[in-house]
Amino acid sequence: MNRSRNLAAAQIDRLTADLHALAEFVDASMPGWTRRALAEPYRESRSWVAALMKSAGLEVSRDKAGNILGRLPGQGSRPGALVTGSHTDSVVGGGRFDGICGVLGAIEAARCLQESGVQLVHDLLVVDFFGEETNDFGFGCFGSRAAAEGIPESFLDRRDQDDVPLHERLAVDGIDPGEIGTPVWVPGTVKAFVELHVEQGPTLAEQNLPIGVVTAITGIERLIARFLGRADHAGTRAMTDRRDAMVAAAQAVLAIQRTGCEAPVHGVATTTKVENANPSPNVVASRVTLQSELRSIDASWLHGARRRVSEQILEAAQACGVDVEVDWSTDNEVVPTDLVVQDTTAGVLDGLGIPWMPIPSGATHDAVHMATLAPAGMIFIPSRNGGISHSPDEWTDAQDIATGVDALAATLVALDRTVA
Amino acid sequence: MNRSRNLAAAQIDRLTADLHALAEFVDASMPGWTRRALAEPYRESRSWVAALMKSAGLEVSRDKAGNILGRLPGQGSRPGALVTGSHTDSVVGGGRFDGICGVLGAIEAARCLQESGVQLVHDLLVVDFFGEETNDFGFGCFGSRAAAEGIPESFLDRRDQDDVPLHERLAVDGIDPGEIGTPVWVPGTVKAFVELHVEQGPTLAEQNLPIGVVTAITGIERLIARFLGRADHAGTRAMTDRRDAMVAAAQAVLAIQRTGCEAPVHGVATTTKVENANPSPNVVASRVTLQSELRSIDASWLHGARRRVSEQILEAAQACGVDVEVDWSTDNEVVPTDLVVQDTTAGVLDGLGIPWMPIPSGATHDAVHMATLAPAGMIFIPSRNGGISHSPDEWTDAQDIATGVDALAATLVALDRTVA
Repeated sequence: MNRSRNLAAAQIDRLTADLHALAEFVDASMPGWTRRALAEPYRESRSWVAALMKSAGLEVSRDKAGNILGRLPGQGSRPGALVTGSHTDSVVGGGRFDGICGVLGAIEAARCLQESGVQLVHDLLVVDFFGEETNDFGFGCFGSRAAAEGIPESFLDRRDQDDVPLHERLAVDGIDPGEIGTPVWVPGTVKAFVELHVEQGPTLAEQNLPIGVVTAITGIERLIARFLGRADHAGTRAMTDRRDAMVAAAQAVLAIQRTGCEAPVHGVATTTKVENANPSPNVVASRVTLQSELRSIDASWLHGARRRVSEQILEAAQACGVDVEVDWSTDNEVVPTDLVVQDTTAGVLDGLGIPWMPIPSGATHDAVHMATLAPAGMIFIPSRNGGISHSPDEWTDAQDIATGVDALAATLVALDRTVA
Repeated sequence: MNRSRNLAAAQIDRLTADLHALAEFVDASMPGWTRRALAEPYRESRSWVAALMKSAGLEVSRDKAGNILGRLPGQGSRPGALVTGSHTDSVVGGGRFDGICGVLGAIEAARCLQESGVQLVHDLLVVDFFGEETNDFGFGCFGSRAAAEGIPESFLDRRDQDDVPLHERLAVDGIDPGEIGTPVWVPGTVKAFVELHVEQGPTLAEQNLPIGVVTAITGIERLIARFLGRADHAGTRAMTDRRDAMVAAAQAVLAIQRTGCEAPVHGVATTTKVENANPSPNVVASRVTLQSELRSIDASWLHGARRRVSEQILEAAQACGVDVEVDWSTDNEVVPTDLVVQDTTAGVLDGLGIPWMPIPSGATHDAVHMATLAPAGMIFIPSRNGGISHSPDEWTDAQDIATGVDALAATLVALDRTVA
């Protein structure tokens, strides 16, 4: 661990200045710090990210999926790069840390390596992955997915609320839909992957620990339920003779919530949308769509929960005289992180005297897709304000980010030997 | 009743042709027979209605609120007119009978009177009231409200989903917002009012009766509830530590439904909209708005139900850690119909040998506003297809409409003497 100990520490002032500068690129018409992929503020912000990488001594390029890559050449003796990075897009009404710490932190780590005079054996690749947050076409991790697996044609044909297909939307970002159907990165590009990220939950702050070493990344099952009742006049149709799709949907919301509450380990269940297709104030709802998700790092619980939720929705709808279609899609399988990467991070943290805990990730990350290419791990830093995330109130202290960068840089140095 | 017996019967072929012709004016981009006020298909349809009135021998004019009036002059010896009519606009995805039977039926009644050589003592005024269905500005009965009471300035300043205020939208229909703040009809215009309308419920069809004499028109209490929870990451925030506005709203939907089910006489409770202001698939809902209504012809039940619903919503929200604002507005007080008009209709039906029943109206109607000007009543005809309404499946048989027109014409003749 001697080389780790000799690394220059992350500079808080420099990190803070970068965070502030990036936070200037926002959609002023939206709440919080909104910087959505495929929108102008994000487009502009990424020119700034590329410039920052360049000024940090990295060789900057852009791949066919819109990922921005900053390369710090190694001694050239080993194939494949150590890859680190995250994303700089946000949800609507998002904050200033989710994803961002992992990109700006990786750039800072690269600066620290250079300032320490450390040249890795492998190339180091710092990545700002394109559009990690769920887009208007119903999927996330655009850039890391394209890099590792390619974007399925069925996804490219999906349409947004303005009925424009994704493949058309990509043109303005210079992404050719014909070039991203198969993995954009050539095999062997990645030797190992580590992602620095805010926890997006309250555990580290509550435990007063600066670092979490991620053990597994949650599986996600997404549900669209379509309730089909009967459009009746809301004033004349007796309560006993209704087929009210809104009532069936409300019962589904509560069944989903109950299922989440019953999870024995980390398991959550959330309904984010209930939409009446024809919300006239005096018409009984006949077509209501509900959008929910289940998450857990326990694959067998997820499987059972999906079945129980379906059963309860069908049963409640039947009691309302309402038909229902229940469509599940697996957004992410449960992904355990690589044990070698976990152990490497744990070892450098112990060596540096930084306390840490193993922690599951309830959110999905670009690391899920990188894990299909190479050993992958994640380092979490605390989310303050009770762990709130995907909110303007999201907060991580600059000191915590700096500690995370130190852990990341030391992990990269150690992995450079471990994965040789 | 001798004069009633001598009236020419309504002609089914003529009525059916008129219904078909009017049904041609629809918004092709919307489901069913959509003809919304302030939209082009409605605008075009009303030129057709005016032309039909003219061809039926009526003197056609338009008042300052956009109501189309067809006058059949009486013998001139009595002040005030007998007024009959309804509306020709529809809800989105509506049918071909709601309101329409009352306008085309009134025109047919005027034709029958003339063909019978009957001249009333009073003028007869056939009205196609402007925009009876709830508009994009949250209120209905535009034309009858303007005629009887005027449109409050606060309504004119309301904005639609495109943020355009109502007073701007009115220009294209030639309605001057400065002219409708006070009653558009001069005092004394109406001597009595009768509206022919489809039941919009299943009772008459189930009882196998062709006519209902309306006893009272429902009161309507409208609710907007705004739930304010906390935006958390849906994957990382534990179920036990959430402030989920969607769960609170779902409990409100069920509390509202339960309240309706508990009503001892006609009472209904309906939630027509649940909207998450920021429906990201991985963010716990923090701002959810719910739109509901309660209706009854029992004013004291309505009052109690409103209080109970508020209490239950507050209690459930509190249990979820969610704040809630509950805004009620009275859209209509309960309006009993005039006893003289009821008795007059009942008398002519008995004279004609047409079976009937007294019936409450669970929907509101232009008659509510006419009732503030003069004795007002309503005649219901059966809704087939299980009483479905505000739906493309709405149906009333042509024979039933013709029977309704006969009842209307005979009622007008009888009222011409009764209200003298």
